[in-house]
Amino acid sequence: MSARTRLPEITPDRVAASARRVMTRCDELARVSAAQGRIERVYLSPEHARVNRLAAEWMREVGMVTRQDAAGNQIGRLSASDPDAPALMLGSHLDTVLDAGRYDGMLGVLMALEVVRLLRAPGPEGRPSVSPLPFSIEVVAFSDEEGTRFGKALLGSSAVAGTWDEDWWRLTDADGITLRQAFLEFGLDPGRVGEAARRSDELVGYLEAHIEQGPELDRRGESLAVVSSIASARRFQLTVEGEARHAGGTPYDMRHDALLGASEAALAVERICRAEHHIIGTVGQLEAFPGAMNVVPGEAHFSLDLRGEFDAHRDRTWQAISRDLDGIMGRRGLRWRAHEVHNAPAVMCAPLLREVVREGIAGTLAPGAPEPTTLFSPAGHDGMALGAVTDVGMLFLRNPDGISHHPDEAVSSGDVALGIRALADSVLHLAAEPA
Amino acid sequence: MSARTRLPEITPDRVAASARRVMTRCDELARVSAAQGRIERVYLSPEHARVNRLAAEWMREVGMVTRQDAAGNQIGRLSASDPDAPALMLGSHLDTVLDAGRYDGMLGVLMALEVVRLLRAPGPEGRPSVSPLPFSIEVVAFSDEEGTRFGKALLGSSAVAGTWDEDWWRLTDADGITLRQAFLEFGLDPGRVGEAARRSDELVGYLEAHIEQGPELDRRGESLAVVSSIASARRFQLTVEGEARHAGGTPYDMRHDALLGASEAALAVERICRAEHHIIGTVGQLEAFPGAMNVVPGEAHFSLDLRGEFDAHRDRTWQAISRDLDGIMGRRGLRWRAHEVHNAPAVMCAPLLREVVREGIAGTLAPGAPEPTTLFSPAGHDGMALGAVTDVGMLFLRNPDGISHHPDEAVSSGDVALGIRALADSVLHLAAEPA
Repeated sequence: MSARTRLPEITPDRVAASARRVMTRCDELARVSAAQGRIERVYLSPEHARVNRLAAEWMREVGMVTRQDAAGNQIGRLSASDPDAPALMLGSHLDTVLDAGRYDGMLGVLMALEVVRLLRAPGPEGRPSVSPLPFSIEVVAFSDEEGTRFGKALLGSSAVAGTWDEDWWRLTDADGITLRQAFLEFGLDPGRVGEAARRSDELVGYLEAHIEQGPELDRRGESLAVVSSIASARRFQLTVEGEARHAGGTPYDMRHDALLGASEAALAVERICRAEHHIIGTVGQLEAFPGAMNVVPGEAHFSLDLRGEFDAHRDRTWQAISRDLDGIMGRRGLRWRAHEVHNAPAVMCAPLLREVVREGIAGTLAPGAPEPTTLFSPAGHDGMALGAVTDVGMLFLRNPDGISHHPDEAVSSGDVALGIRALADSVLHLAAEPA
Repeated sequence: MSARTRLPEITPDRVAASARRVMTRCDELARVSAAQGRIERVYLSPEHARVNRLAAEWMREVGMVTRQDAAGNQIGRLSASDPDAPALMLGSHLDTVLDAGRYDGMLGVLMALEVVRLLRAPGPEGRPSVSPLPFSIEVVAFSDEEGTRFGKALLGSSAVAGTWDEDWWRLTDADGITLRQAFLEFGLDPGRVGEAARRSDELVGYLEAHIEQGPELDRRGESLAVVSSIASARRFQLTVEGEARHAGGTPYDMRHDALLGASEAALAVERICRAEHHIIGTVGQLEAFPGAMNVVPGEAHFSLDLRGEFDAHRDRTWQAISRDLDGIMGRRGLRWRAHEVHNAPAVMCAPLLREVVREGIAGTLAPGAPEPTTLFSPAGHDGMALGAVTDVGMLFLRNPDGISHHPDEAVSSGDVALGIRALADSVLHLAAEPA
């Protein structure tokens, strides 16, 4: 491939400098938060706007042309010499859970920018750089992956994938603000969200680096892994209805305590999922109403996040949970219902992208080392949405003790350097493939 | 007793009119709410001020001299001809739980006003009425019995009992407003709360009518009961600490899920209390943090309301619950702690007041009917606080299906008429006792 000859050399020093820059910028992004002393950055918030501006600045610094799309995603583009060549999309997201760590998402965006820095051919004076590869490169900082604000994950990447659902406009945040209102307040036009959608023929694929969000690499003492697939996930908001009664005067035989029903349900989710292989269910939210110390709860709300490597297995597990809930609620004279707020099938990483990531990682290993580890991801990622429009590949970085979605979330600068090197090489291997 | 001869006759028609007035006024008070479509009236709120004004108007209508005391309790007084004679206090409270019924508390205040109406001797033109009895009569509408706003019950009656605790000033409501700030915003001077306290020698006793808040009278087909004692109650705010982690990436063997610990705890409270006689424990509040669908909860808060007929039995039960929580949390690698926010010993009704209430109820029964039923009250009442300063007596009214702290809470006009008649006669029997 002739383009490759024009590439600047990727020296260990350049890679180490890139890793240091990534670590520093993760700290810088961590300071953009809606809460004092902890990280909270949700979709369409003032903090979202601030990190988009920062990301755009950093994109321009490596020669990219920038834009914010119709769903608030921040995009940088390094066009190929043929401006109509399809683009390889790199990236991750900049939104966070509440009281988040500083790497989940942000790391993938910043590593992608360093890959661009390492690979780009500087353009003529005062003009944007160009991609030295047979495809354009885009770095996307997705605006909503976690779903923290509206309870619906992957809003940003779904807009890009063209799978936006008009029903979502009625989703509300904790203050009762609808997604539609939030769009308007952020300065976006709900009527134009379709313009964020990309066509398959515009894209080569989507490649993302992310911390593992689990302990496997740490347990094995390895830095990087190839991702085989992203788990299927379903999310439900469940409601249990009983009868609010006086806490002192109501004997147990007359109670229909919604909170006790929900408590049994949460424990049933744990018991059922624990007995399965590669299935994980979590109740992250639970609240009782009316919520007074001296009133038997008449209603309880809780959430269920259910993930599995394979859709069918996950769905059988949900059926088992449902049967258990029927039993629990029946015994207690309670009613229950579930509202599904998210349903994403498992996304298998594309064989070609798995192979180039494997080659990229293999190049970072000592001669004679065993083959790179392959993991499936129980955590959801923007690739789940993008799978609807293009091929997806992912690379995992070691996450010490597997702590994620928590202030103690960590990654080492050394692993980030290896990850940048592997990701850049993955892109080069992809460029070397026959079209 | 000579005074008695001056009493107007208590005819069935007058009692029935009183009962109708009570029912109408319960509806009128129900319309004073902070929430649309449901009843919510908490301590030191604008609604509190509005019902105090209404109650004061109704107190003056039956010839009482009114004042709002230093803790926001609304008081009406009908002095005896000897203005230094001690006062018999009648009443209940006007604050509510969230989404409350319309009788718990309010009924006792309004019935007390009708007893005054039936017994009073109208004063000279344009002057207040006087008590025809050897004691003054006061009707007190207590300002806080439920503890809804600050999580601490009996604030109003504790002020009257002189058992106000200076630590309470730091209690906060859901919006972070301290009790001290709320006093100031309501127009009360925190430094003067001690002025609400009454001396024992000023009081004859405290007599209260209240719906049963339980199903016993309804199950027996009876209208009224003598109360033997008010249950001892302890309330705790409990905290479970674990580790917030990513819901997808954290295997079950690495989780320390605070919500599952709290769920097991809530079920343990039910199991342990259910096995005891006359012990009842309720978890009315439960919340998980950070409270995101895709984060394993790192912390959970829940409340425990624990009641028993006898203090020692209740305390042994709390010890059993504590041991169980040690086991649950230990197994799950969680920490837990309990903060006691309320501790009231059981209050035994005074033998003399029990006897006059029994006589009052007996007078409403058909000749040859069995003796009036005596019940203990698992629900707390203002009398629990007042027991520290004076004798306490109570009368229960039938509560259909035992539904209380709920919009469906009910009482029949017929039972209210019987209750007014019995309460008025109880007061007369007390007046007939040798001093």
